Amino acid sequence: MKSLFKLIILLVLVYQPGYSQNGIVVFQSDFGLKDGAVSAMKGVAIGVDKKLQLFDLTHEIPAYNIWEAALRLEQAASYWPKGTVFVSVVDPGVGSQRKSVVMETLNGYFFVSPDNGTLTLVAQQMGIKALREIDERINRLPGSADSYTFHGRDVYAYTAARLASGKLKFGAVGKLLEPRVVSIVYQKPVIENSIIKGTVNILDIQYGNIWTNIPKTMLEKAGIQINDRVHIRIYNETSLNYEGTVVFANTFSAVPQGKAISYLNSLLNFSVAINMGNFAETYKIASGPTWVIEIKKEQ
Amino acid sequence: MKSLFKLIILLVLVYQPGYSQNGIVVFQSDFGLKDGAVSAMKGVAIGVDKKLQLFDLTHEIPAYNIWEAALRLEQAASYWPKGTVFVSVVDPGVGSQRKSVVMETLNGYFFVSPDNGTLTLVAQQMGIKALREIDERINRLPGSADSYTFHGRDVYAYTAARLASGKLKFGAVGKLLEPRVVSIVYQKPVIENSIIKGTVNILDIQYGNIWTNIPKTMLEKAGIQINDRVHIRIYNETSLNYEGTVVFANTFSAVPQGKAISYLNSLLNFSVAINMGNFAETYKIASGPTWVIEIKKEQ
Amino acid sequence: MKSLFKLIILLVLVYQPGYSQNGIVVFQSDFGLKDGAVSAMKGVAIGVDKKLQLFDLTHEIPAYNIWEAALRLEQAASYWPKGTVFVSVVDPGVGSQRKSVVMETLNGYFFVSPDNGTLTLVAQQMGIKALREIDERINRLPGSADSYTFHGRDVYAYTAARLASGKLKFGAVGKLLEPRVVSIVYQKPVIENSIIKGTVNILDIQYGNIWTNIPKTMLEKAGIQINDRVHIRIYNETSLNYEGTVVFANTFSAVPQGKAISYLNSLLNFSVAINMGNFAETYKIASGPTWVIEIKKEQ
Repeated sequence: MKSLFKLIILLVLVYQPGYSQNGIVVFQSDFGLKDGAVSAMKGVAIGVDKKLQLFDLTHEIPAYNIWEAALRLEQAASYWPKGTVFVSVVDPGVGSQRKSVVMETLNGYFFVSPDNGTLTLVAQQMGIKALREIDERINRLPGSADSYTFHGRDVYAYTAARLASGKLKFGAVGKLLEPRVVSIVYQKPVIENSIIKGTVNILDIQYGNIWTNIPKTMLEKAGIQINDRVHIRIYNETSLNYEGTVVFANTFSAVPQGKAISYLNSLLNFSVAINMGNFAETYKIASGPTWVIEIKKEQ
Repeated sequence: MKSLFKLIILLVLVYQPGYSQNGIVVFQSDFGLKDGAVSAMKGVAIGVDKKLQLFDLTHEIPAYNIWEAALRLEQAASYWPKGTVFVSVVDPGVGSQRKSVVMETLNGYFFVSPDNGTLTLVAQQMGIKALREIDERINRLPGSADSYTFHGRDVYAYTAARLASGKLKFGAVGKLLEPRVVSIVYQKPVIENSIIKGTVNILDIQYGNIWTNIPKTMLEKAGIQINDRVHIRIYNETSLNYEGTVVFANTFSAVPQGKAISYLNSLLNFSVAINMGNFAETYKIASGPTWVIEIKKEQ
Repeated sequence: MKSLFKLIILLVLVYQPGYSQNGIVVFQSDFGLKDGAVSAMKGVAIGVDKKLQLFDLTHEIPAYNIWEAALRLEQAASYWPKGTVFVSVVDPGVGSQRKSVVMETLNGYFFVSPDNGTLTLVAQQMGIKALREIDERINRLPGSADSYTFHGRDVYAYTAARLASGKLKFGAVGKLLEPRVVSIVYQKPVIENSIIKGTVNILDIQYGNIWTNIPKTMLEKAGIQINDRVHIRIYNETSLNYEGTVVFANTFSAVPQGKAISYLNSLLNFSVAINMGNFAETYKIASGPTWVIEIKKEQ
């Protein structure tokens, strides 16, 4: 009787709420939409189970840009329902020794990707529940073993579809790895002497806005409030590319057309724009781990 | 007995044929497909109800181009089944005082959009049955209240999905407005002294063809028939950018490659092209409310 | 009894396994995604039957490029489940005498397209089971008879959707034609004096890689193995545009960044690339029936 009680306690302790896959697969790649590559991936997936629902994140990641792949996943993944399976194929090292993995996150998402840095940010954002290496001998489109270069279709899309449909259990993906993914080094947001430092991590490219990784909460800690003016410096490594003072507002129409403004973007991160203009083009700003931004409240 | 009869009469009188939502949501925006914004909108929508069917109109509306947003809706919406819910997010005034609305049309479609001119042409094409302002206190993705800049995801996609799924009744969108949308002024097609005047309202951009708002019926009124030659002038405000005489035909192969031709496009409007060439590029023609075209039958 | 036996034998002999349509429609065109044309096609299709599943191959075929339309179908179609209906609308001759057809292949796919060369390669790849001309008097979106220029929406999408949903039987498409499609002439892969000759049939455009139509099996016949060096010449008609010697490897990382390499692409055809670079741009190589490649093993 006592040991039964112990067993129950033990079961309660080890129990973690399970999110099972929901039949949704979301694809990301650097393939573009001009050829048939994305379509072939989807054909393979729907061939696994016609009841799957297939969507896209983006296929316009610049070729080989792992940093941007990482950011797009961080930007969009958490808006999908728990249990969604994401496939990301930005894979400059295809054919080399990089591992193909499936990551299950603490909040119940699955990511199928080469382990090359793509998972850096969603791993930090969501936490890793378990990481498995895809065993390509068993998780591969039948008949595809001679193809060396289209893992996206033959391994990733196929495995994601089988996982999403429930035909493949997560435990059968392949061997369990340490819960650690290959990660890109970048300037995390910090405050030093009331200067906030962070990364220009991406451009809101359609509009030329600068998006940083500095969150609302850090602005609050530095006492920066709506209608304050902030002094901004943007560096590419050691070269200063922009310096200026702009208002921090919650609507673009707070400044005249053509004027710079800072605001919180839809991820609630500090961002800089020109109202009805293109900040990045105007000041030749790009994005990535080498682009550092410093901001300070003007007194 | 008599009052029962009265009641029946009354019911017949107030009855209007109801088109209910059909579970289809069609998205339009100026976000492009390079980042995760469109995907985040769809994730929110499918999170509302997994049985929804999500499609796109286009996400390549040039940034802030409300006129083009209006035209794309007019071009494509009526080919979807009645009951479809459209979401259009071209929103230069996000955060300003422009209203967010849902328009129900007389022929049974729903449009979720900022009320900034986007609905000009579908309102004229389909007629407004009712217009409601979205009450953002109740129609907003839970947890999104701190975000000031991504109404497309947090308000429009969320509201459209709830409406399309039947979880939100049209009457619960928000307060009823006068059935009138903000409208863009443009040259409507007219005949004066046997000259037809209209707007170059859009380019068939992939091919460089000029599409006008002059309908087939007006050409018939002016006596213009297949194989007639027509004299064309195209102005940008007061500046004459093209003048020439071309045949009016019903197939491009009616003229040699490289020659200009006029024809009815798929909306049955008067259009001008170069067979296997690019009219707009060749003659530097753009489109919009400032681009006026005049045509006259050559005797 | 004997005649019953004969009948059974006969039935077995004439029986061909039937693949019926599976409710999936895959769209291809040269319309691009900037306007509402693709959306209008899908609206018409989903209006035929809400249970259809609609996908894309690509809509970025360069305008009027029938050769590329043919290649994209060959690249992707066979990865979709049997019974899928493809619609391809690359149609420079719209309105002329080219026929609109539905081709059923021996392996159970359906292709709806103008018969203008688009079907050249899938017909060779899959074999033609039957070819029917679309009778446009009966297979046309109701109300569209006045439109001369948007066959993609009014005839092709509508017919494909009805076929995919089972509402239109293949036999009711229109009259049976000879099982022969209009075909583009190109250099098929051959070996002469241990030189392999073929076509640069397409660029892997996102990366600038050269894809040829020379299959793995022909390389094996010529004794070319992994780690061999091969001498390559690329001609546009009679003009020599590239000559060089590169390794034949099964991973890009076999050469340093910036170096050329040859490999098998995902279709198991001979291909040439620059590791982390753009071969086509660097050497001004394009693709199509006029681009011939010769390769020879270096001794």
